[in-house]
Amino acid sequence: MADANDHLNDWLRDAHAMEEQAETMLKAQAARLEHYPKLKARIEQHIGETQAQAEALSRCIDRRGASTSVVKDAAGKVMASAQGFVGMFATDEVVKGGMASYAFEHFEIAAYTALVAAARHVGDQETAEVCERILREERSMADWLASNLDEVTVQYLQRSATPGETAKR
Amino acid sequence: MADANDHLNDWLRDAHAMEEQAETMLKAQAARLEHYPKLKARIEQHIGETQAQAEALSRCIDRRGASTSVVKDAAGKVMASAQGFVGMFATDEVVKGGMASYAFEHFEIAAYTALVAAARHVGDQETAEVCERILREERSMADWLASNLDEVTVQYLQRSATPGETAKR
Repeated sequence: MADANDHLNDWLRDAHAMEEQAETMLKAQAARLEHYPKLKARIEQHIGETQAQAEALSRCIDRRGASTSVVKDAAGKVMASAQGFVGMFATDEVVKGGMASYAFEHFEIAAYTALVAAARHVGDQETAEVCERILREERSMADWLASNLDEVTVQYLQRSATPGETAKR
Repeated sequence: MADANDHLNDWLRDAHAMEEQAETMLKAQAARLEHYPKLKARIEQHIGETQAQAEALSRCIDRRGASTSVVKDAAGKVMASAQGFVGMFATDEVVKGGMASYAFEHFEIAAYTALVAAARHVGDQETAEVCERILREERSMADWLASNLDEVTVQYLQRSATPGETAKR
């Protein structure tokens, strides 16, 4: 038996850990990309959003009187889950990296969907609004990645088939 | 330098391996769920779809004169990526499991989006149509999971706060 407010605090800490993990993965991905400037630019924009999201979550956690420094079991589990994506992000291949990014954005979308439901359930309107705003940014990034994946796939196949061109990243 | 048809064959093998992995994960998840019958029923429906998808991919691979038994580097990488999700699926907690499922469905959506683009690029209309059909099934599962996540989150919080009830799965 556990109070819904305790779960919400745990999940906010999870989300904070998830955004810190996201920043590391996105930076590594942007640094590797050479031949896909539009994708690289969009990822760099999202790094800025990700940093602001982690700060907004910290403020929610502080305002609720919880602490970001307490890493509970649940937070550890989400960290492990997020790290499951690291291997996918570490790929040297732009199409697979695009697939991993798209999946990770939806992991985040699901996390904020649950957070909005939990914040509304306990009547914390301010946290609900912060999480709704972050949710819109994650959806926007996910939609961009989806619309870019066709183009990246064809570019990759064309570069692969051209002597002297490198396609992978 | 590699031919687009070779990439398409590799990606079809990747997708086949991904669906086999998906079947294992979905079965484990359905077997664990106790208190969320709607979610369990939808997952069980999707297990059937997943098996049929793997068979449809096998037929595409055969028709193209490739072989499902050749596991190349690329297929191995996607297997490793899919296995990154296993830890997430192994969670004993319905909300985190829902997040993992939602992310995995979008990994699959991205895979079939790339496959459709690649099949069209090489002019393999039949493979494009098979992958479009599978893509619709994955989107339908993803949409269902999204619409169910609010409800599962609130049920979980309510069960957690009720003495004598178990909430996790």
